[in-house]
Amino acid sequence: MNQSDHITRTAAIIGGGVIGGGWAARFLLNGWNVRVFDPDPQAGRKLGEVLDNARRALPSLYDTALPAEGRLSFHDTIPEAVSGATWVQESVPERLDLKRGIYRDVQAHCPPDAVIGSSTSGFRPSELQGHAARPGQIIVTHPFNPVYLLPLVEVVPSPATTPAITGKATEILTALGMKPLLVRREIDAHIADRLLESVWREGLWLVRDGIATTAEIDDAIRYGFGLRWAQMGLFETYRIAGGEAGMKHFIGQFGPALAWPWSRLTDVPELTDDLVDTIAAQSDAQSGHMTIRALERLRDDNLVGIMRALRKSGSGAGGVINAHETRLADPGPDTGPAPADLPVTARRQVPQGWADYNGHMNESHYLEAASLATDRFMGMIGADAAYVASGRSYFTVENHVRYLREVKAGEEITITTQVLRGEGGKMRLFHRLSGGDGGLSATVETMLLHVDLNKRTTAPPSGDVAARLAEYARAHARLPLPEGAGRGIGGPR
Amino acid sequence: MNQSDHITRTAAIIGGGVIGGGWAARFLLNGWNVRVFDPDPQAGRKLGEVLDNARRALPSLYDTALPAEGRLSFHDTIPEAVSGATWVQESVPERLDLKRGIYRDVQAHCPPDAVIGSSTSGFRPSELQGHAARPGQIIVTHPFNPVYLLPLVEVVPSPATTPAITGKATEILTALGMKPLLVRREIDAHIADRLLESVWREGLWLVRDGIATTAEIDDAIRYGFGLRWAQMGLFETYRIAGGEAGMKHFIGQFGPALAWPWSRLTDVPELTDDLVDTIAAQSDAQSGHMTIRALERLRDDNLVGIMRALRKSGSGAGGVINAHETRLADPGPDTGPAPADLPVTARRQVPQGWADYNGHMNESHYLEAASLATDRFMGMIGADAAYVASGRSYFTVENHVRYLREVKAGEEITITTQVLRGEGGKMRLFHRLSGGDGGLSATVETMLLHVDLNKRTTAPPSGDVAARLAEYARAHARLPLPEGAGRGIGGPR
Repeated sequence: MNQSDHITRTAAIIGGGVIGGGWAARFLLNGWNVRVFDPDPQAGRKLGEVLDNARRALPSLYDTALPAEGRLSFHDTIPEAVSGATWVQESVPERLDLKRGIYRDVQAHCPPDAVIGSSTSGFRPSELQGHAARPGQIIVTHPFNPVYLLPLVEVVPSPATTPAITGKATEILTALGMKPLLVRREIDAHIADRLLESVWREGLWLVRDGIATTAEIDDAIRYGFGLRWAQMGLFETYRIAGGEAGMKHFIGQFGPALAWPWSRLTDVPELTDDLVDTIAAQSDAQSGHMTIRALERLRDDNLVGIMRALRKSGSGAGGVINAHETRLADPGPDTGPAPADLPVTARRQVPQGWADYNGHMNESHYLEAASLATDRFMGMIGADAAYVASGRSYFTVENHVRYLREVKAGEEITITTQVLRGEGGKMRLFHRLSGGDGGLSATVETMLLHVDLNKRTTAPPSGDVAARLAEYARAHARLPLPEGAGRGIGGPR
Repeated sequence: MNQSDHITRTAAIIGGGVIGGGWAARFLLNGWNVRVFDPDPQAGRKLGEVLDNARRALPSLYDTALPAEGRLSFHDTIPEAVSGATWVQESVPERLDLKRGIYRDVQAHCPPDAVIGSSTSGFRPSELQGHAARPGQIIVTHPFNPVYLLPLVEVVPSPATTPAITGKATEILTALGMKPLLVRREIDAHIADRLLESVWREGLWLVRDGIATTAEIDDAIRYGFGLRWAQMGLFETYRIAGGEAGMKHFIGQFGPALAWPWSRLTDVPELTDDLVDTIAAQSDAQSGHMTIRALERLRDDNLVGIMRALRKSGSGAGGVINAHETRLADPGPDTGPAPADLPVTARRQVPQGWADYNGHMNESHYLEAASLATDRFMGMIGADAAYVASGRSYFTVENHVRYLREVKAGEEITITTQVLRGEGGKMRLFHRLSGGDGGLSATVETMLLHVDLNKRTTAPPSGDVAARLAEYARAHARLPLPEGAGRGIGGPR
């Protein structure tokens, strides 16, 4: 970023609604000073709400801190807001006369080499430029809500836009952590909104004709192709569907459907040999460096990662996985006294996403697996979800992990749990983690204290939980103390 | 799942291509026996490849093991495959005569209460039923590729399909970990494929007219709205865009665009008051139990989770985040000798996804943060990515985590690192993790061994790395041994 190292990091935001506010947040959190012009008396409150959301979410994307936040100021006039600004972003309602009037004011007071970007969803840049004093300075920079999180910005120059402005816009957007997509030929609604508008129009028909409700249409997207699109989009997904035979095969298979009433969009292009060749060649250029098998695995790893991420909130596919897992893990009715053998508290396959660059399980995931084994053991002694909901739980105060042998992604691991101590408010567990061949791969010793969740203080467990824990503790006391238990990380300093 | 507890878990797969193979994998990995009929001499190999992918990916979704895999067999005739089956899934090419002929054979030999599901993308169930002996048994169960991972199945009965078959299909699909979406009124291409077909047709125009390449169209999806659709879909996203004013406001704002040339789908429904009211009411029923603010946070948490998941492969938005983080974290030029003060090896915000149900950071993420701090410290002594690429690295052999104070999601944490030992192949570090107010929240003591990555054995570090590490070790030896260092998890057994 040679250029932006020397620029003044000041952005003017014209129109501070959801989109303008999102832009303001994106700039501020990346260290830019932001000047806002918006005559709405509620603008300050509204922008503050967007900024609250952004401060909560954007820094969470990164494993390192963002730069110190820039300074936010509100201004009563456009000249005051744009004077000396490096970037001016216009996000006012979709009325051409309104936008053109604003550019007149802006250009009378902003530096001639400032980027004037428009958030317009649909107007072409040449329409925006109209009779502007310096049309070359005006460009479409169309973002997606929430602007502070989604990376995409469609950058649409007209033939009159100078290459310097297009280059500067692209460079600054990249430095804001965004993904500028250059739209090489202007068209109404650019690229993404044309796709969105087609789906919106098709969706309106489905609702109007009583085929599906809004919720059913959303479900048809988020439990299915929405998950594919979040990572690959349309054409690469279809390339995979075509298999080794490739994109031509896919088109050959699904091409005839263009003539069928599968959509209200019936004005379809003819699938000439030329068009098929163009698509195949573009798809080769896009994805041809990977075999179909490699693309399948990339797609699957991404899908697993996305769906595992959605387990947290239980949204969409995440909720389906949580429900299925509850069925799978249901321990069934209580089977009586605690066994003398060590209970199996986890059996699972190591997800690809848990691997480091070598394909081996990353160190923190050993603890993640052991932590779930602790949860499972807590369930076995009656300290289950209902118990926690009643205001009591065990909190981990110490963990000691010893890594004895590498575990690979895809390997099935098993954890057994030995109670080393279980009396009063204390519970000390020793987890043994075995790999696919049964060999010991890691041990996790963990000390927990029983707490009153309301008072946030230690407290003894309920009588039932204490009794079940004591039963395990007695049975396991007959076993030898595990090798490594109680040991610290020793050696000379 | 009362019913499926008593059913015979045997599925017949008619047509074992990518879709049929995906169905076979979904059934097998959920404990069903699967019988395949496919005259293709390559069917066994092809299905084996799909099954390999499925075994790698599907179990990774869950934190517990799937049931023992069912038995897979191939059969030369349809009667042999379907006799006694509880489920028959047809996934042959989209030719009505072919499908009808298969149902004739199937119905002559399968139980009368078996579900006969069709994977058809476009035919209506009433077309499939044609002159079938028992039309009530035939239903569309339309899955999405990869069938073994994506939860969605469109379940489309015709008026002739019996409620018992629809109910049984729904129940079994749920027990397979899928999400059956009941399509209440049959229509060509059901719901999802109508939306997909509209986008496909719009996309073909963009390629044909030279507006965008296949790669640019995919980017317009996966860096932007594809991320929204993976979790919420179309209408709920737009409800949020409408803000507190709601869905009516959104339609009022974007409704006029229906008349504009924003899509090739120009046959649009009229936005009558009735239709607007219907959409608003359906949207209220779908999402009205949450405020817009709550929906925004849910959306943002999901987006952050999805994008963080994509960092692993670097696909789409994940790659943009990785690149931005590299710019943010660039330590700049070497600043000379090691400082006597403890170096800051991490400063970051705790992502919402790292929190447990209480909003506090979950135990394994303390180690994840410390592990990244170790990586950062390795970089500071020259054991960076290039060093690892040259075949040498440090491996963690032990970690000891003490949890001293709770840390909340959204809090900024800082980690400093003290070298307790750094000589020969050994490196012993002591990380102190502080919360937003600077108070000590956790300590992580970690022991690492230097290894030769090619031989997978311990080996001394390079001279440069050894020297820089020794410099830190000498400087830090002047500081007192930290409280808790070297200690094990003690106490009586």
